Amino acid sequence: MSALPNAGPRPAAPPALLDELRTLLGDRLSTSAAVREQHGRDESYHAMMPPDAVAFATTTEEVSAIVSACRRHRTPVIPFGTGTALEGGVAALTGGISIDLSTHMTGVLRVSTEDLDCTVQAGVTRKALNEHLRDTGLFFPIDPGADASIGGMAATRASGTNAVRYGTMRENVLGLTVVLADGRVIRTGGRARKSAAGYDLTRLFVGSEGTLGVITEVTVRLYGVPERIAAAVCAFPSVKAAVDTVIQTIQSGVPVARIELLDEVQIDACNRFSKLGLPVEPHLFLEFHGTEAGVAEQSEMVGALAAENGGTGFQWAARAEERNRLWEARHNVYYAGLALRPGARIWATDVCVPISRLADCIVETKADVMEAGVLAPIVGHVGDGNFHLTIVLDPDDPAEMARAEAINARLVERALAMGGTCTGEHGVGTGKIWAVEREHGEAVDVMRTLKAALDPDGLMNPGKVLRMG
Amino acid sequence: MSALPNAGPRPAAPPALLDELRTLLGDRLSTSAAVREQHGRDESYHAMMPPDAVAFATTTEEVSAIVSACRRHRTPVIPFGTGTALEGGVAALTGGISIDLSTHMTGVLRVSTEDLDCTVQAGVTRKALNEHLRDTGLFFPIDPGADASIGGMAATRASGTNAVRYGTMRENVLGLTVVLADGRVIRTGGRARKSAAGYDLTRLFVGSEGTLGVITEVTVRLYGVPERIAAAVCAFPSVKAAVDTVIQTIQSGVPVARIELLDEVQIDACNRFSKLGLPVEPHLFLEFHGTEAGVAEQSEMVGALAAENGGTGFQWAARAEERNRLWEARHNVYYAGLALRPGARIWATDVCVPISRLADCIVETKADVMEAGVLAPIVGHVGDGNFHLTIVLDPDDPAEMARAEAINARLVERALAMGGTCTGEHGVGTGKIWAVEREHGEAVDVMRTLKAALDPDGLMNPGKVLRMG
Repeated sequence: MSALPNAGPRPAAPPALLDELRTLLGDRLSTSAAVREQHGRDESYHAMMPPDAVAFATTTEEVSAIVSACRRHRTPVIPFGTGTALEGGVAALTGGISIDLSTHMTGVLRVSTEDLDCTVQAGVTRKALNEHLRDTGLFFPIDPGADASIGGMAATRASGTNAVRYGTMRENVLGLTVVLADGRVIRTGGRARKSAAGYDLTRLFVGSEGTLGVITEVTVRLYGVPERIAAAVCAFPSVKAAVDTVIQTIQSGVPVARIELLDEVQIDACNRFSKLGLPVEPHLFLEFHGTEAGVAEQSEMVGALAAENGGTGFQWAARAEERNRLWEARHNVYYAGLALRPGARIWATDVCVPISRLADCIVETKADVMEAGVLAPIVGHVGDGNFHLTIVLDPDDPAEMARAEAINARLVERALAMGGTCTGEHGVGTGKIWAVEREHGEAVDVMRTLKAALDPDGLMNPGKVLRMG
Repeated sequence: MSALPNAGPRPAAPPALLDELRTLLGDRLSTSAAVREQHGRDESYHAMMPPDAVAFATTTEEVSAIVSACRRHRTPVIPFGTGTALEGGVAALTGGISIDLSTHMTGVLRVSTEDLDCTVQAGVTRKALNEHLRDTGLFFPIDPGADASIGGMAATRASGTNAVRYGTMRENVLGLTVVLADGRVIRTGGRARKSAAGYDLTRLFVGSEGTLGVITEVTVRLYGVPERIAAAVCAFPSVKAAVDTVIQTIQSGVPVARIELLDEVQIDACNRFSKLGLPVEPHLFLEFHGTEAGVAEQSEMVGALAAENGGTGFQWAARAEERNRLWEARHNVYYAGLALRPGARIWATDVCVPISRLADCIVETKADVMEAGVLAPIVGHVGDGNFHLTIVLDPDDPAEMARAEAINARLVERALAMGGTCTGEHGVGTGKIWAVEREHGEAVDVMRTLKAALDPDGLMNPGKVLRMG
């Protein structure tokens, strides 16, 4: 299931195309092995499949010219952001040209402090955007952990720790500039906060992972930096006690900004990697945003729920440095997992279930992991019902891969049976095509119809999201 | 522009199709003139175009059978909810079968108080759903004024007074059951709060106005009834002063639940129709949701902003009856407008602009209305940047229609020049096809490609949303 389902014959890109692109881009076209390899894999266990060349684009018009040239030469196009994805979405399964959007397309084109929105080139990363916004009193909340590009986050419908309060890229992208498979450039959406003006093309391209077009510019919502931010950690006697606290928090409507679960295995890894010094027990990491009074009220309500569930050692991190240290550790769970076993890679699962089923889903999954004897810390955006096993493994060991594959398959089936989804935020890439088919059944045919209509030659990031014919 | 752009020859539905549908539905197929006429127009000025027959469906399977039969006989299908739309979306431009979803498909299929969601048949109205939820402590906030069906609201991407806080149907639909043009039934989305599992078909069908398929079931988010609700009205010396208060409220991040503008013309109409007894000045109608402390804090902040802008006579309506009277009056603005001139109809405009441009947009539009000497109260969901002129007119008077058309055209151009949209929530129907083309340019071709792919025979609510070749 992790293999390359659509990997057919793999012709090299025609020399005439490379000549054409070299004329267009000069030394911004690279065919060096190191560059191609860097663009042929993401941070996951998925195999590296280098493109034939990497085109470092500077403008939407240039992306359009590259896509048009590729189309004339019937050569695949694979958009590339920061390469921090987890489902093999950038692998050049059948060769082709990787369009790197994050090296030169890093301009913040417009910020409106009055309208709380901005437009950026696709390669601006979330940290770079927030750095740019530093003196405006505004921030961009979507935070998948990695310092991903805004274009890549839109393409994969990313979310992360703040989504429980601020939503995902689905809710926060207002409009896009997209280069279509035939090289045409369209603008979708706009700057109005709502619109009923025709089909929602913005939401169609958000999450399409480069298979319908290349996102080159993104307009996103911004938010005022809260008057008050307070973070806290709390230990629990069991994962179930922690998750029950989350469920009750969500059901009470407390507008918590972040509520993250780290199980005892994950805490142990974080203690080693990030020197946290926390007791090796399941923890919630929390953050509250609001006015002074609002944050006080929220934290009191959640503190009471935690206490009822046996939570202990509620520690506050009100100062920015303490908060940053906490979230830095949270963001580094991936690398903390990797550090548990030098040379290993991570297979990250990503189910998301209705909140009422979350405790059952995690408890059953944890039992399954124990039974299989696999090293797999659990971390999760549990306010959304979303959690990850980060299975630490050697991708070259077939037995380890088979165990991980079996755990993932059982987890997906468990989540689907509970009314959930196979991927809350990591996307489909090559790794979850089978799971999307399980989840959406007949509706996948409709997705194929849309793909065929917008990319009739099948050249836009082929072999991702859907199995075509 | 208000005419019927795609109205071609209008063959009657084949007798063989009517026989087939009568066999399927018995007396739930109606060809009576009264029923056909009732299903051939909405509440707007748009001309009545009756379907050849009305099919009162009871289940998704029956809708599928009806659509399949229509396809075999190459006869158009027009979904019908409550007929409360405003852009001519239910007119049978080229004849066909109206599928009435609101008479029998009124079942609430499932409510999860734990997960704050529910699934309903398309014909359940928003008031019926909230009545059903009464003892659960939950409510469904989307409120377009009319007691529209949830299916119709999904199909038109409706929003209304609460959208500034709770979002629109775009944000609140989790999943759909849809009958496609070929009769296949698909389920889109799911119950997880977020998902990255393939293309966002849910958002594609939300707002597609029956042109891509028939929505038969809808899963929506629910919310806990706030601990405290407080409403208020406040008069302002000018529309600009009122709108400036709104802009500052939104920019300050106050999570106001409703913030509605009624200009002095609208207040006068409401005083007459709903016996409000308010001074004939521009007003804001406000509502705050939250904890006791939260509502106190929000209302204090907005009260201070209103006072700075010259707001006077801040009146609180904390008791449920007072609040209901206020919002009942707000919801009846449409009928209050109609009552100003017996026998008239309403042409409702619907632009939505970035909030920083809202005062300019309204002030310029009001000057235009004065100049044209047209009766057109202004009411708006101003927290979203969305407002309506409700132009009171005689649709049989070509001079009045021409004046309204010109005002609307200038308003749309003004909103687009400000980065806004031609329709915030009413949708496209037949009335805004030209405006969507102005707004989205080349992207409309992509919408046509999607339509052609999913409805190759062009039988799903033809002539709406898009001009198809």
